[in-house]
Amino acid sequence: MGSSPNSKPKIVRGTAGYVLEDVPHMTDYVPDLPTYSNPLQNNPAYSVVKQYFVHVDDSVPQKIISNKDSPRGVHFRRAGPRQKVYFESDDVQAAIVTCGGLCPGLNTVIREIVCALYHMYGVRKILGINGGYKGFYAHNTISLTPKNVNDIHKRGGTVLGSSRGGHDTTKIVDSIQDRGINQVYIIGGDGTQRGADRIFEEIRRRHLKVAVVGIPKTIDNDIPVIDKSFGFDTAVEEAQRAINAAHVEAESGENGIGVVKLMGRYSGFIAMYATLASRDVDCCLIPESPFYLEGPGGLFDFSEKRLKENGHMVIVIAEGAGQELVSESIQSMHKQDASGNKLLQDVGLWISQKIKDYFTKQKTMTINLKYIDPTYMIRAVPSNASDNVYCTLLAQSAVHGAMAGYTGFTSGLVNGRHAYIPFYRIIEGQNKVVITDRMWARLLSSTNQPSFMLNKALIEEKREDEEEENNDGQQ
Amino acid sequence: MGSSPNSKPKIVRGTAGYVLEDVPHMTDYVPDLPTYSNPLQNNPAYSVVKQYFVHVDDSVPQKIISNKDSPRGVHFRRAGPRQKVYFESDDVQAAIVTCGGLCPGLNTVIREIVCALYHMYGVRKILGINGGYKGFYAHNTISLTPKNVNDIHKRGGTVLGSSRGGHDTTKIVDSIQDRGINQVYIIGGDGTQRGADRIFEEIRRRHLKVAVVGIPKTIDNDIPVIDKSFGFDTAVEEAQRAINAAHVEAESGENGIGVVKLMGRYSGFIAMYATLASRDVDCCLIPESPFYLEGPGGLFDFSEKRLKENGHMVIVIAEGAGQELVSESIQSMHKQDASGNKLLQDVGLWISQKIKDYFTKQKTMTINLKYIDPTYMIRAVPSNASDNVYCTLLAQSAVHGAMAGYTGFTSGLVNGRHAYIPFYRIIEGQNKVVITDRMWARLLSSTNQPSFMLNKALIEEKREDEEEENNDGQQ
Amino acid sequence: MGSSPNSKPKIVRGTAGYVLEDVPHMTDYVPDLPTYSNPLQNNPAYSVVKQYFVHVDDSVPQKIISNKDSPRGVHFRRAGPRQKVYFESDDVQAAIVTCGGLCPGLNTVIREIVCALYHMYGVRKILGINGGYKGFYAHNTISLTPKNVNDIHKRGGTVLGSSRGGHDTTKIVDSIQDRGINQVYIIGGDGTQRGADRIFEEIRRRHLKVAVVGIPKTIDNDIPVIDKSFGFDTAVEEAQRAINAAHVEAESGENGIGVVKLMGRYSGFIAMYATLASRDVDCCLIPESPFYLEGPGGLFDFSEKRLKENGHMVIVIAEGAGQELVSESIQSMHKQDASGNKLLQDVGLWISQKIKDYFTKQKTMTINLKYIDPTYMIRAVPSNASDNVYCTLLAQSAVHGAMAGYTGFTSGLVNGRHAYIPFYRIIEGQNKVVITDRMWARLLSSTNQPSFMLNKALIEEKREDEEEENNDGQQ
Amino acid sequence: MGSSPNSKPKIVRGTAGYVLEDVPHMTDYVPDLPTYSNPLQNNPAYSVVKQYFVHVDDSVPQKIISNKDSPRGVHFRRAGPRQKVYFESDDVQAAIVTCGGLCPGLNTVIREIVCALYHMYGVRKILGINGGYKGFYAHNTISLTPKNVNDIHKRGGTVLGSSRGGHDTTKIVDSIQDRGINQVYIIGGDGTQRGADRIFEEIRRRHLKVAVVGIPKTIDNDIPVIDKSFGFDTAVEEAQRAINAAHVEAESGENGIGVVKLMGRYSGFIAMYATLASRDVDCCLIPESPFYLEGPGGLFDFSEKRLKENGHMVIVIAEGAGQELVSESIQSMHKQDASGNKLLQDVGLWISQKIKDYFTKQKTMTINLKYIDPTYMIRAVPSNASDNVYCTLLAQSAVHGAMAGYTGFTSGLVNGRHAYIPFYRIIEGQNKVVITDRMWARLLSSTNQPSFMLNKALIEEKREDEEEENNDGQQ
Repeated sequence: MGSSPNSKPKIVRGTAGYVLEDVPHMTDYVPDLPTYSNPLQNNPAYSVVKQYFVHVDDSVPQKIISNKDSPRGVHFRRAGPRQKVYFESDDVQAAIVTCGGLCPGLNTVIREIVCALYHMYGVRKILGINGGYKGFYAHNTISLTPKNVNDIHKRGGTVLGSSRGGHDTTKIVDSIQDRGINQVYIIGGDGTQRGADRIFEEIRRRHLKVAVVGIPKTIDNDIPVIDKSFGFDTAVEEAQRAINAAHVEAESGENGIGVVKLMGRYSGFIAMYATLASRDVDCCLIPESPFYLEGPGGLFDFSEKRLKENGHMVIVIAEGAGQELVSESIQSMHKQDASGNKLLQDVGLWISQKIKDYFTKQKTMTINLKYIDPTYMIRAVPSNASDNVYCTLLAQSAVHGAMAGYTGFTSGLVNGRHAYIPFYRIIEGQNKVVITDRMWARLLSSTNQPSFMLNKALIEEKREDEEEENNDGQQ
Repeated sequence: MGSSPNSKPKIVRGTAGYVLEDVPHMTDYVPDLPTYSNPLQNNPAYSVVKQYFVHVDDSVPQKIISNKDSPRGVHFRRAGPRQKVYFESDDVQAAIVTCGGLCPGLNTVIREIVCALYHMYGVRKILGINGGYKGFYAHNTISLTPKNVNDIHKRGGTVLGSSRGGHDTTKIVDSIQDRGINQVYIIGGDGTQRGADRIFEEIRRRHLKVAVVGIPKTIDNDIPVIDKSFGFDTAVEEAQRAINAAHVEAESGENGIGVVKLMGRYSGFIAMYATLASRDVDCCLIPESPFYLEGPGGLFDFSEKRLKENGHMVIVIAEGAGQELVSESIQSMHKQDASGNKLLQDVGLWISQKIKDYFTKQKTMTINLKYIDPTYMIRAVPSNASDNVYCTLLAQSAVHGAMAGYTGFTSGLVNGRHAYIPFYRIIEGQNKVVITDRMWARLLSSTNQPSFMLNKALIEEKREDEEEENNDGQQ
Repeated sequence: MGSSPNSKPKIVRGTAGYVLEDVPHMTDYVPDLPTYSNPLQNNPAYSVVKQYFVHVDDSVPQKIISNKDSPRGVHFRRAGPRQKVYFESDDVQAAIVTCGGLCPGLNTVIREIVCALYHMYGVRKILGINGGYKGFYAHNTISLTPKNVNDIHKRGGTVLGSSRGGHDTTKIVDSIQDRGINQVYIIGGDGTQRGADRIFEEIRRRHLKVAVVGIPKTIDNDIPVIDKSFGFDTAVEEAQRAINAAHVEAESGENGIGVVKLMGRYSGFIAMYATLASRDVDCCLIPESPFYLEGPGGLFDFSEKRLKENGHMVIVIAEGAGQELVSESIQSMHKQDASGNKLLQDVGLWISQKIKDYFTKQKTMTINLKYIDPTYMIRAVPSNASDNVYCTLLAQSAVHGAMAGYTGFTSGLVNGRHAYIPFYRIIEGQNKVVITDRMWARLLSSTNQPSFMLNKALIEEKREDEEEENNDGQQ
Repeated sequence: MGSSPNSKPKIVRGTAGYVLEDVPHMTDYVPDLPTYSNPLQNNPAYSVVKQYFVHVDDSVPQKIISNKDSPRGVHFRRAGPRQKVYFESDDVQAAIVTCGGLCPGLNTVIREIVCALYHMYGVRKILGINGGYKGFYAHNTISLTPKNVNDIHKRGGTVLGSSRGGHDTTKIVDSIQDRGINQVYIIGGDGTQRGADRIFEEIRRRHLKVAVVGIPKTIDNDIPVIDKSFGFDTAVEEAQRAINAAHVEAESGENGIGVVKLMGRYSGFIAMYATLASRDVDCCLIPESPFYLEGPGGLFDFSEKRLKENGHMVIVIAEGAGQELVSESIQSMHKQDASGNKLLQDVGLWISQKIKDYFTKQKTMTINLKYIDPTYMIRAVPSNASDNVYCTLLAQSAVHGAMAGYTGFTSGLVNGRHAYIPFYRIIEGQNKVVITDRMWARLLSSTNQPSFMLNKALIEEKREDEEEENNDGQQ
């Protein structure tokens, strides 16, 4: 099997339409690996727990809404400790790396991987790779212990540092081999998980006994299959400050407009949930729902009406919203003075400018627009209590999986249960707000904003149960 | 069917072991009720949503961990809007009541019931019952509109006021009839839900066209079946302040001991999650896990060791922990001076006193004990963003269910999906921390506290999958 | 005296160099005004206070650092209730207006003027002027009562609304006359106080019995004479969030630079105090201290060094810093594409761009710059406890002064004592950070940033005691 | 002079009634001490400051309210750097100790003493004494550097640990001599300052070249002469949470009473300012204002009225209020069951019990009383921005004074200026709320609570200007 370019999905079928999309195991390509009994068996904390170990066949369904005769559908392997492990504690050399932008909870995940390896499995050799993927070959590493990570969950950011890009599969796997690393924990978004997949494939090709584990990190919540990504709750919470401020500014000024840009390059989850949680927002613009500015039913028209009715309004815009409109605008500009115009690629600055220009031209209304971009203030806060607990379980699940010999998987929450998901399902696309779904309808109903649908007949999208379930944790 | 003292469970069976525990419907005891098409059909916000209405047969499984051949088990009816409703907008006279102690999110639930009735279903007559159950017959009511509830979600407490007890089924149902109320939304804990069940049974007995809907409220998270109760996240978050303060006090004093009492009369969820989220706690005591003070393996022994090792420690204790020890203590006291001794029924004051007495007697160690009771400071905060969204969906689900003619049900989250649960399942017992389960093992492993199990052989409890799943949302 | 274009300063001299710069009184230009005994005399709350009323001669020195033989210098009239008042409660028609940008505490000042007038002096007719100065003639007014302002201090912004400009002295005084207003409370910055002075002069010219009282509002703390303006503490506190976020972002990225823009068009107090309070800032740039970018000792040079030493840095820049550099940059740009380039007038966006350009050109270092502009998130928060108390006393002092017949004065804190300051002293210039003073030296010493002084000999400024004292409350 | 048991006050007189109460100097009892030029002269941060050094004769008046002929009164020596210092950087061996209860800002003061010594004066030997006074002879010390104190200001508590008592003058001064310490920084309340005075006297007796410097720490703000103590602002701010919670609980229950106990054993400043800042309090009880429970005008009577009017009320009580009533109660109890009764010495628990008993006996009203004691949650928070800046200047002033050879003094803020105050003025009594003063009248007027004065004629206290000024920073 080892010679195939990519590992094939491992599918198991059962009764009543049951399908298990299983994750790779080191034994798939390294024969005759010895097993050991799980050291947790002797851990006093677990001595009171009767059936601590996860049953070998336990799985978690991806789709749970069902009726009396519906097929059972796709399942994932349940996360948790196994009776047998494939590593001896002394032989483990673990490495942890964080890639991409900041997200609340990164330090908690790092801390808890270290603590789980150390306290649960007696692992003593844990490396932190500095500065993202390129840290494998370009930076120093630091040794991580429960002591030196003890308080890091109370700080934002990542103590390991992070970076974007820098992925060179061969160099990374060379470095893994050179350093004798046999468990790799990779914390990052979809690009990072794609990189993790390439690392796994290369390791499989080289027949190395190395477990490659992904932990999905995306403040935008745009990773498919999983319920939500860590840090998302904290981000939505922190976004309330910005929306409150925009609301206060808008209310206090004459024809006050508060514009808040929130994270979300490809998906508008933060904008949508922050809007739903706040109740002070008049219009929420996200990448998934195209909008237009001019003409009846457009944003200008709506804003003018809202100002006339209420005297003020708040607009929340996801950073990836209206990108096609922005591009158009930019292209019509002169090529000189690049630095000024480049700023307008920021959709928040761009839309603020457009709204100001519109009302200036109209001459009929003086407006007071205040633009707030809280992005870095949100990303940099420490995770809240709920995310702290979530990060802890995510980290422990990842460690249990690696110790049990699984590899090429991402640890994630599926319908409230921790599961192991094969990389190909995580990187196959992006989780997006389904605008023909009820959650978006709830938002429209709460803001009373226009749907920006010129012609309803154009909407061909068909709601599919699976999409809906993936996108919308709370039906 | 109307003459039976209590309604029988409505059970539907399907393939592969599928069981649906359905909720009552007004048509069960009122014949020939006319139906109307759902006004949401004409709501612009929903016009882009293809299959907005919930399929009549959709259900949510109670147990989702499964393997390829396992039976499908118990399901509940999925919450959401139905194509047909059993009330005309103009005919609805809704009433909302809040009972029991404060919990973050009460005002959000009130607000969102009002907004859902008003904006989604065009209902104009909505009453707020003041001061809990007894408000039905002893207090004035207030008229609720989207305008007068607009900002209440930013405040803690309940604008309706609340009280404990005061339940007189006959008087309440008389009042419901007198006032022409035909939708009753009852927000409260297990005692309140039991009262709601009695109201429902009386209404059924009188064959009234009245929908009785429960919305489970318990900051302790001790209601069975549902994933978690609203306000719980906020409470765990707010508890961090108290734990942090206890940690700072303990660290700064010589042999400093910080004791924090948290809510949880019968279940220790807040204490457990707050401990897991904080990582600064040395010992967490909950009602479900008995403990003892004296002798080897006891709390005094452990505290002495921990102080000698670290110089300080933090103890978190749920209000219902160690009740049998407290009772013993109290009984051995003189009957006079009741008011002083009564204070010792507060387990936090009691255990603080016990620990001080112990170390004073020992004479070998001076300790500095600081006791913190943040209960009312936690209960009174407004709900955080995550609870705000949760409360919104809970309220909307309740309204959709009542409009669709369902009654005698509680609106709740089951495995991340909103469902309608028959009252008898909500009031049949209490959700408790299963101390033979993995979540508690995680806690023990994180605090390294003793298990207080004198004799492991005594533990006869067998872990059952179902219990585990109910208690532990994040496996 | 009434016919002179502007009222002359009222100066009183005493022993040992004592000078009192007194405030105008209505009797200066309206003869034979009757007086009444202060209704506070019958207020039970004040019955225990022996010498409640301020002695007629009490004054507060502007300069308090002294030695055994130094002259006593300038004093201001002490604020507080007087035995005799010049208005009967029933005859008072008060008006309150808020002008200019938002500042924490505006609502507290409004609330407390209303409460002081109502509860202390029995005044029942209090108008709120909507939307700033122009509200006198262009908007509706609202009636203010202790009940409708009861909770406003917990909200940010101003319930009256605000605007810039719109000052038309004649129209305003006409409106004051038309509406029968005889006490005008004007809350705003230096421009607003200048307007208040013109209103006072016009009222004096018309010989109206109207007290004109200014309450200084400037989040920048740039009003002369007074110790600090209300909201300043809250602003500095809130700015810490942004600096913390910048610090976390900078630490987590490779060569991370966090740039935070803070308020301060002409004075850098917020930037300076926020920097001193935080201790995470590497460079603080303010309008009072010119800086340069290129060459040795310039900002680029310093940044490069700091990144090489520490790997990250945080820059705090006041909005008015480096304006001459920004203007130069803008002028060298093409006239087209105005909207993009206009953004670069924001010094934060401009400097971020300059730093990025520099390091891109250098090619030797990849940097990660994150720019944070928390301005509106700071302005919109409610005032903290300390500002709440300050606003309360400020409001009460203003009311006591107006009731006592003083006019044309600003209520302000001078050396920790509330005093009445004649308008001409408030509007004569701006309070600025004295960069040859010790507070700035403290800052330089804490950040170790360059002083950007090309040639020390150029500094001719001589520190003067008075300046120092005005600018620097805590020596 | 050295042989006198206690040093005599150093008094200097000047023109117009000027009096300087000067602080001791090491040259008072050690002859022929050499001086050195201040190393700040060569500090680049100070090179732009023209007259950086404090003039040798600068002083700060204690009383500043004056009229044109009033005498100038008592002054204190102005704090700040002097041209000449009495220590060479290499010869300094400094020690820092924190004593008594926690207070926000302790870590900032420690940090800034270290940074000032290190960065301004090039001092490298700085010891932290662990665990309060007894740490001098019973504990280890730690070496303090700018690096190891870098982040401590973001944490509550004290990194040095603290304790009460343990003062043994001889042992401490022996230890100071043994360790070669020549600058002692003592951070603590009035008891601690008294101890510092004894240390100073012993050092003077032994003719040691050791500077003894006090930094006043008291969260209660009860130290005389100074404007306010560090941490006070933070404490008042944090107390708002508890008052808000009490208000929410009270409003939501039937006849809800929220009782909040705040710090203040002998003085009610925190209670008074927290009440003034909040505006939600109906009654504020402090040690300085005796009250009674029963009969007309008593607390029960007032509470009953307030509940009948508003349905709810909030009581704030300082921990030292009503001590004589509490003692009476305790004495009437049985001697057995000490631990239960001891709890009633907590005035918050005691008054809550009394109120409950009263309304239970009356039978006419059911009340819902919630008692909140936020003491440790307030003490343990890190200092806010305003206190951070204050602590910084306080620490720097202390260091400047010690380096300049002054000793036996406390560094403190007097009328907004940092000054050196001789110990005898700090320990001569306690700063208390003057209930015949205007600030307390403001409070009474804001709460409308009874004055609890049975017979006004009994009040013999005469308001004295001086007292008023000391107690009340913001007139």
